[in-house]
Amino acid sequence: MTDSYPVSAANKVRQLREKASYDRATVHAILDAGLVVHAAFNQDGDPVVVPMIYGRDGETLYLHGARKARVIKMLESSPRCCLNVTLIDGLVLARSAFNSSMQYRSVTVFGAPQLVEDPAEKLHALKVISEHSLPGRWDELRDSHDKEVKMTGVIAVKIDAASAKVSNKDPEDEPEDYGIDIWAGVIPVTTQLGSPVDDSKLRPGLTPSAVVTRLAGRVV
Amino acid sequence: MTDSYPVSAANKVRQLREKASYDRATVHAILDAGLVVHAAFNQDGDPVVVPMIYGRDGETLYLHGARKARVIKMLESSPRCCLNVTLIDGLVLARSAFNSSMQYRSVTVFGAPQLVEDPAEKLHALKVISEHSLPGRWDELRDSHDKEVKMTGVIAVKIDAASAKVSNKDPEDEPEDYGIDIWAGVIPVTTQLGSPVDDSKLRPGLTPSAVVTRLAGRVV
Repeated sequence: MTDSYPVSAANKVRQLREKASYDRATVHAILDAGLVVHAAFNQDGDPVVVPMIYGRDGETLYLHGARKARVIKMLESSPRCCLNVTLIDGLVLARSAFNSSMQYRSVTVFGAPQLVEDPAEKLHALKVISEHSLPGRWDELRDSHDKEVKMTGVIAVKIDAASAKVSNKDPEDEPEDYGIDIWAGVIPVTTQLGSPVDDSKLRPGLTPSAVVTRLAGRVV
Repeated sequence: MTDSYPVSAANKVRQLREKASYDRATVHAILDAGLVVHAAFNQDGDPVVVPMIYGRDGETLYLHGARKARVIKMLESSPRCCLNVTLIDGLVLARSAFNSSMQYRSVTVFGAPQLVEDPAEKLHALKVISEHSLPGRWDELRDSHDKEVKMTGVIAVKIDAASAKVSNKDPEDEPEDYGIDIWAGVIPVTTQLGSPVDDSKLRPGLTPSAVVTRLAGRVV
């Protein structure tokens, strides 16, 4: 396997090309940092986009929902889907509206969604999805009931094409605008996990495990 | 105008219906809090999703990009598009994988994208988009050049149908699972603006205005 995704008409970045990357490590890092993916598919010819919890295993993204959910049925019957994960890192305040923008990390993936039917692969996918946002939690949970696995729909999307776009720079103003008496710079945007809050029905005496407490402060 | 969006096949929430809302105020509040919208459209029959900066004016969402950008050309020629804004508020750690989930605010909008060609409406839309994430900044900026407005593509999407889904609860476990010796609860997720960072090319002596400094600490 090469270090980069092949560039095709589907994933070629046309605007702000200097921010584009097809490097697998860059794409994987952004996919691994995100909390939700936006999945787009066609419903009767019209586009629909749905936010979904996900996880990555190598070159496969796993998505899940209720087995009977529209999004699972639609993905199951769609030949293609498009997935995007975007993380906002800052507001870029330039000296003009035209050059004002955002700092971000974004990945777009194209692939053919496949319903996962094998119970062992399904359970594996559910673990991948759980460990994505809650590493270590899976082994603390009670085992999944067969009925729960059956009630869950899992979609696998092998990454056929992908691109990343990363914007992390200062404003880029017109040369003459640097002389204007106006502050310019960046307002950072941070998404962060906080300290665990007890379930109101928690049994007295139970405290968060190390797996849970070490999540506090994690920056997405 | 009624207080709620009409419910149709397009926007009817089928899963977790108790979390659904068609109330305009709820939909508007989530749209106003978000930083990016995920816009889905069809390209040669295949779904594509692109993150975009946006703003809301009443029942119209304005999106923008380079006039020649693929996303603008595609939206311009698409009869329908679907937009989603999702904000993650927490990780919900239940006692089973099946009941683990997230807290979130999410809005899905359906509409017919229209290219905005009138220069006055375009400029108005650009102000709406700027003020969405940077309220008050527009009046500090130098005026837009006609050439910049021409180089920018603006898409208006009048909200034809919309739904919100809000999840803000404790874990909802199976009755028998509350007896398991495992911590459960919520890990809050917060997206917040930080303190302004000077452009490395800032003219000496310039400091952020009140418009800029009051953004620090804002929670998305």
